[in-house]
Amino acid sequence: MKTPFVTKEQLEAIATQYPTPFHIYDEAGIRSNARRLKEAFAWNPGFREYFAVKATPTPAILKILKEEGCGCDCSSMAELVMAERIGAAGQEIMFSSNNTPAEDFRKAAQLGAIINLDDLTLVDALEEAVGSVPATVCCRYNPGGVFTLGETREGFQVMDNPGDAKYGMTRAQMAEAFRRLAAKGAVNFGIHSFLASNTLSNEYYPTLARLLFQLAVELKEETGVHIAFINLSGGVGIPYRPEQPANDIAVIGEGVRKAYEEILVPAGMGNVALYTELGRFMLAPYGHLVTCATHEKHIYKEYIGVDACACDLMRPAMYNAYHHITVMGKENAPCDHKYDVTGGLCENNDKFAVDRMLPRIDRGDLLVIHDAGAHGHAMGYNYNGKLRSAELLLKEDGSVELIRRAETLEDYFRTVIW
Amino acid sequence: MKTPFVTKEQLEAIATQYPTPFHIYDEAGIRSNARRLKEAFAWNPGFREYFAVKATPTPAILKILKEEGCGCDCSSMAELVMAERIGAAGQEIMFSSNNTPAEDFRKAAQLGAIINLDDLTLVDALEEAVGSVPATVCCRYNPGGVFTLGETREGFQVMDNPGDAKYGMTRAQMAEAFRRLAAKGAVNFGIHSFLASNTLSNEYYPTLARLLFQLAVELKEETGVHIAFINLSGGVGIPYRPEQPANDIAVIGEGVRKAYEEILVPAGMGNVALYTELGRFMLAPYGHLVTCATHEKHIYKEYIGVDACACDLMRPAMYNAYHHITVMGKENAPCDHKYDVTGGLCENNDKFAVDRMLPRIDRGDLLVIHDAGAHGHAMGYNYNGKLRSAELLLKEDGSVELIRRAETLEDYFRTVIW
Repeated sequence: MKTPFVTKEQLEAIATQYPTPFHIYDEAGIRSNARRLKEAFAWNPGFREYFAVKATPTPAILKILKEEGCGCDCSSMAELVMAERIGAAGQEIMFSSNNTPAEDFRKAAQLGAIINLDDLTLVDALEEAVGSVPATVCCRYNPGGVFTLGETREGFQVMDNPGDAKYGMTRAQMAEAFRRLAAKGAVNFGIHSFLASNTLSNEYYPTLARLLFQLAVELKEETGVHIAFINLSGGVGIPYRPEQPANDIAVIGEGVRKAYEEILVPAGMGNVALYTELGRFMLAPYGHLVTCATHEKHIYKEYIGVDACACDLMRPAMYNAYHHITVMGKENAPCDHKYDVTGGLCENNDKFAVDRMLPRIDRGDLLVIHDAGAHGHAMGYNYNGKLRSAELLLKEDGSVELIRRAETLEDYFRTVIW
Repeated sequence: MKTPFVTKEQLEAIATQYPTPFHIYDEAGIRSNARRLKEAFAWNPGFREYFAVKATPTPAILKILKEEGCGCDCSSMAELVMAERIGAAGQEIMFSSNNTPAEDFRKAAQLGAIINLDDLTLVDALEEAVGSVPATVCCRYNPGGVFTLGETREGFQVMDNPGDAKYGMTRAQMAEAFRRLAAKGAVNFGIHSFLASNTLSNEYYPTLARLLFQLAVELKEETGVHIAFINLSGGVGIPYRPEQPANDIAVIGEGVRKAYEEILVPAGMGNVALYTELGRFMLAPYGHLVTCATHEKHIYKEYIGVDACACDLMRPAMYNAYHHITVMGKENAPCDHKYDVTGGLCENNDKFAVDRMLPRIDRGDLLVIHDAGAHGHAMGYNYNGKLRSAELLLKEDGSVELIRRAETLEDYFRTVIW
């Protein structure tokens, strides 16, 4: 069972001021989760979470996370500028990008961000763009092949195909990149890797950590460079379905610690800092897409039409992703109606739910679409001329603040040359 | 073989003024194709193509099509306003929408647009929104079940699942809607249906026409209303792959005529106007996404990185769609390299081609991504902070005009409340 962080009465009051659909975020939830993460890695003095800005590129959210000690993981010029404008500086910014334009390298270098190189060819490209190689630099590793955790204690199999992913360098290229960077003057090195997305196993991060710690020991021996940090990147997921068990970040932190003490400490690398780049885990559960049931339709199936659409949350359309739905005020009603819950796009994949058992929905009902806090508004588009919705923040004191206004027709037409 | 409508020399000259990536459209191609369509249905005096604005919602394109006699098929407030601003008026506008907001109905009615009702419940909703039911009105039909053409002469099977689609009314609801609308004062009725997307069979439209003509005869008999037009909607596709045969619109028009003469004329309905709502067929082949190869990467596969990404053309990421690629200046070189052609998103589905055999690509090469003229720029988004690209028009006289400027950081940040 998933419980919204707002009540029906709260939402009804909010909707009088801010028309549906809108995204709303839970400051208290964001902060307490960020603190749990920090606590889980408190044993590592250099630990820092770099929030994956792409998940929720909204300054008010980044500011909250900054107050909780998080940095910004940026992937583009726009995200670098956003990080700069909320006051992130220097090594509070990690810049991880691929097909990186020279001007993005220059901006990252100007901010003093830690630059994470996706490919061996970018060693020269970085030097060319910036004029020199920064003292601190990171390289992204791709082990190739298939990554699998097998059947875990939690009953899930974690599998992904790094060998089919465009990211990172091979083992040999990592050593080569470190040597070339050292020759060009780099002194502090980092290792970054991303092997699986949205995992629900407490063993993913420890397994990845083991792999990267071993690599760090080897690379230090082979190349003689100083490994200053290891970036476990993202991959720690959230349970989109109510029956899925959530990750336990404390257990994950302990698992990583064990690997650290078994591998890095004996190798004399007990001062290596650990970084994470979580997006979904930091924000998804703390954002709701709130929408109103505006239409019902009875043809070959039963449809409920809502005023949000894939333009507000693309994951169901693009990934066939499950997002749980709460019909506000009907939390305890029997789920005895089978509905497709649809947006209004002229696009048949514009469905928030297909054949979903829900309580009877009436026009005017408010629906909370859960776990929309990451990769939700961020992936919004304007297909069919739809305007992107507003973002609100439910503050710790219970008040509500507009943190991004809804688009207008003037916004929609602003780049047109009539 | 697909041949770009611009030469390498032209593109190089254009790129000095408008940096890649950009979309470019071919005015001559758009016009001659629109004329072929008009010619194919010239036997029907009331014929009109209503261009599906959602495919390419760019005023300069709509103006060209208006000059060729096309109307606008709109699905939202923004598209209605765009149609109005390019000078489309009254029955030059068709409004087809689902989950329709009351204000959109009001805007459509104010413009005198033909309103196409997606559902029986919208009969009352329309009257409530507008105050009355317009004299001319259309209803959307969904026959349910599975639509199949079987193996056609062209060797393709056309199949889709209208029964699983959210659109339209059942047979019984169509009659009921017509009766209710007539009782409320409507006098001219239309029938609309969309059964399959992007078909490559010359038999799709004639088969659909037969089905709708038969329905029209029955509905006229049952309800006594005057059927003024039948809207065959979209579905006539284009060959994205070079080995696929294109539709022959003249053959299609003849096939529809035969059905018309066999069914409608004997029923005394020889004055029914035919409408189409083509988007892809009208624009897709006449738009290129032009991008520059900026990176190459050699890991477990060979990658070419380009400066465009899924934010410029989402179809490969969302639908796993094929788009043909021409490497400019290497049209006659052997395709002896197997590449993934990737954009720079932190999203592994951001690939314009996977395991594609292409000529050797060097950094700096210009690539034309074909058939991006429909559902290309229109589906653009800002994921990873990427800015949407410009749109250019290659005019009939060979000059190039900017018809939509590229986004800036100011655009990207405009709705943020800092």
